[in-house]
Amino acid sequence: MKNLLPLLFFGLTIFVNAQSTQDSESLKQIYDEAMKNGKSFEMLTELCTKIGPRLSGSPNAAAAVEWSRHLMEKCGFDSVWLQPVMVPHWIRGDKEVARVLNSKKHGLVNLNICALGGSPNTGPSGIIAQVIEVKNFDELKALGSKVQGKIIFFNRPMDPTKIFTFAAYGGAVDQRGMGAVEAAKLGAIAVIVRSMGVNLEDYPHTGGVRYSNDVKKIPAVAVSTKHAELLSSLLKEEKDLQVYLETHCETLADAPSFNVIGQINGGEYKDEIIAIGGHLDSWDLAQGAHDDGAGCVQSIEVLRLFKELGIKPKRTVRAVMFMNEENGLRGGQKYAEVAKTKNEKHIAAMESDEGGFTPRGFTMTASDVVKNKIKSWKPLFEPYGLTDFEHPGGGADIGPLGAQEVPMIGYLPDSQRYFDYHHTPVDTIDKVSPRELELGAASMAALVFLIDKYGLK
Amino acid sequence: MKNLLPLLFFGLTIFVNAQSTQDSESLKQIYDEAMKNGKSFEMLTELCTKIGPRLSGSPNAAAAVEWSRHLMEKCGFDSVWLQPVMVPHWIRGDKEVARVLNSKKHGLVNLNICALGGSPNTGPSGIIAQVIEVKNFDELKALGSKVQGKIIFFNRPMDPTKIFTFAAYGGAVDQRGMGAVEAAKLGAIAVIVRSMGVNLEDYPHTGGVRYSNDVKKIPAVAVSTKHAELLSSLLKEEKDLQVYLETHCETLADAPSFNVIGQINGGEYKDEIIAIGGHLDSWDLAQGAHDDGAGCVQSIEVLRLFKELGIKPKRTVRAVMFMNEENGLRGGQKYAEVAKTKNEKHIAAMESDEGGFTPRGFTMTASDVVKNKIKSWKPLFEPYGLTDFEHPGGGADIGPLGAQEVPMIGYLPDSQRYFDYHHTPVDTIDKVSPRELELGAASMAALVFLIDKYGLK
Repeated sequence: MKNLLPLLFFGLTIFVNAQSTQDSESLKQIYDEAMKNGKSFEMLTELCTKIGPRLSGSPNAAAAVEWSRHLMEKCGFDSVWLQPVMVPHWIRGDKEVARVLNSKKHGLVNLNICALGGSPNTGPSGIIAQVIEVKNFDELKALGSKVQGKIIFFNRPMDPTKIFTFAAYGGAVDQRGMGAVEAAKLGAIAVIVRSMGVNLEDYPHTGGVRYSNDVKKIPAVAVSTKHAELLSSLLKEEKDLQVYLETHCETLADAPSFNVIGQINGGEYKDEIIAIGGHLDSWDLAQGAHDDGAGCVQSIEVLRLFKELGIKPKRTVRAVMFMNEENGLRGGQKYAEVAKTKNEKHIAAMESDEGGFTPRGFTMTASDVVKNKIKSWKPLFEPYGLTDFEHPGGGADIGPLGAQEVPMIGYLPDSQRYFDYHHTPVDTIDKVSPRELELGAASMAALVFLIDKYGLK
Repeated sequence: MKNLLPLLFFGLTIFVNAQSTQDSESLKQIYDEAMKNGKSFEMLTELCTKIGPRLSGSPNAAAAVEWSRHLMEKCGFDSVWLQPVMVPHWIRGDKEVARVLNSKKHGLVNLNICALGGSPNTGPSGIIAQVIEVKNFDELKALGSKVQGKIIFFNRPMDPTKIFTFAAYGGAVDQRGMGAVEAAKLGAIAVIVRSMGVNLEDYPHTGGVRYSNDVKKIPAVAVSTKHAELLSSLLKEEKDLQVYLETHCETLADAPSFNVIGQINGGEYKDEIIAIGGHLDSWDLAQGAHDDGAGCVQSIEVLRLFKELGIKPKRTVRAVMFMNEENGLRGGQKYAEVAKTKNEKHIAAMESDEGGFTPRGFTMTASDVVKNKIKSWKPLFEPYGLTDFEHPGGGADIGPLGAQEVPMIGYLPDSQRYFDYHHTPVDTIDKVSPRELELGAASMAALVFLIDKYGLK
């Protein structure tokens, strides 16, 4: 026996090497096809330019549903269907106005703002009140009764020293998400929030606000980072500045909408599902190119590449266009709810919602067994520039699946440019590099290929 | 003695770990300062918008020399000087024209072209000749005497499946560099070269042509990748297409110019020089933002960060703005020549000339000892996304120093977008991400910091 062991080990090594060579070749096929004939950029151009902004409940969102259904049908996937879901329906209305009224030094000063998603409006005659700047909720609370009747200006910048910009976002977004509720608790009548951008920019970034049913809902707007600096500097000179705010947004009744799902049926283990997705809805200020048209077309592209290359998966591979990630997450919740009701077995859920930028790796929230299995494939990805497999993550839309213990995987692109575009008027197709986008789709297809081939146990 | 060994090892481990923690902190200081208060983007904006295109010999190139000298003086470097060098002086003249004249199906068809650098002009009345398409020099040579009197159209695309786009460039650029000479040897009267771009674009990419003194210099132009496809498709329908070419470029007498050099004197080993550079000249079609304004401002920023952070280098650290990389390399040659004459000891030369994109690592052409030393610092760079230290490289301008056995290091950014802008009318400041640019400068400063601290032996 002892004498056979080295031989066995040798045999195993040959087998593992041959396997890995075969996998290298399969990945090269996928990447080559994507880089030569990939369709992600073409699809994204169509979504961005023919449809454009597609906030939940809007006619454009409905158009995007039909567009993606039709597209996946044209791709010849085994089945394509709409999964009904009721979504919030918030509309911006006319252009917002914000103006410093009483600066002795500077007179009237206009500020570039936009209403934040979910915010009520100011009424047609607007709001006039004194502005108080704070950096965080502790400073807010310390103001106590002084907050009463005021407009609170949250002005803590994203930390530029965080190399992973989502960490900087995470460290600042409480102001946008919870600022209105926290300020209203103390009697504020509106909030102005510094935009979630790392650079100094002219345009504001919109985004969702969380309101609470037991706290008065007060108007919330974002101000461009440049004008946040301006307002702050004005307040340093004159403490008693009055600001006029005017917004016209409103929340209508919930609207019917859909997740759009396409799938290629698995052969050997067709009941095991690998779901890949992005969210189809986008904020209303631009085309939602990076957020998250990119993730949608990349998800469709994974299946399209499989078909194009004649890859017949053992497991069922699904592309899911989630609806309403931006201001409700209803699509993600619905998808997970239906999956549970139908007792579907998802062996993995992957999301691309960090922009269509050059690939860096994948994030994972999963058991150690699953994570180690995926990490064991890292050498296969290194030739394509993916080296980061160490961080937890996934995606908002697949979060509800994650709560059902489905392993979550996030496509991890380079994050430097994301918050230049996120939720702004400049998240447009011209900000997307065709090669970066296709490389991302290829990377996702490659990982799905390996998960399908080997499973995750 | 035996008993002391583990203790010694233990002590060494503590020392190495403490060292590495200290280095981590130093690097964090450098990166933090660059990301919070970096000036690369501000400097580049000024260079691009106040000066713009700066081809060797042009008034703009002279302005860029003064701008960078003044800038480095303002930064308070220990010395700043101009190093004279004579450079080629090629001018484009009026806008070029290219037109298919005799398509029975399509009538007149205009092609988007530009003259290639160094090309002679067509004469005021242009050139009319039949066009023959080839993919490479073998196909050209196989045509033999058929080439006589014709315009040769080189139309081999860059290979989109090369993930490192410079490899795709390397595989196609012989057509631009040597096409005119090879075609002229067989009697061609002009060449049209498919632009060196990976995507299908409307605009042509310029770039240098190499002529030979013993072969007739014929006009050479680049056609946009879209119009290369168009011309090729027209030629598939009709073989005998005549094209009209008109260019007005000319080569004037060599002009006086300068490399611009700034330095911080070393303390302990001031005769050991670490040179960091980019090239100040740029093609005439745009602002030379990525190629290579980025590398210039990053090199200045390395020294500026040192000063700002109070880092007093042991060795002399030099920022070199090389002149004439694009169409002559005279600046790089002059710098190396002077270094040799003065018997200067360069322990390393680093160049940034692959665009101001997000950092991936460094390339190196050096002895194994040097390479291994630099690779041993890799863990210090991983938190900032630099993981690729494996490839040979350096930079064109420092090549002549490399020939003197100076270790060459190239800053390696992500390459996906470089050839969207390279030598085109769209290499402008709006294509540069502030964070990506500053991260690059910080990475260069961090590596210079380590080289200065530890040397490279």
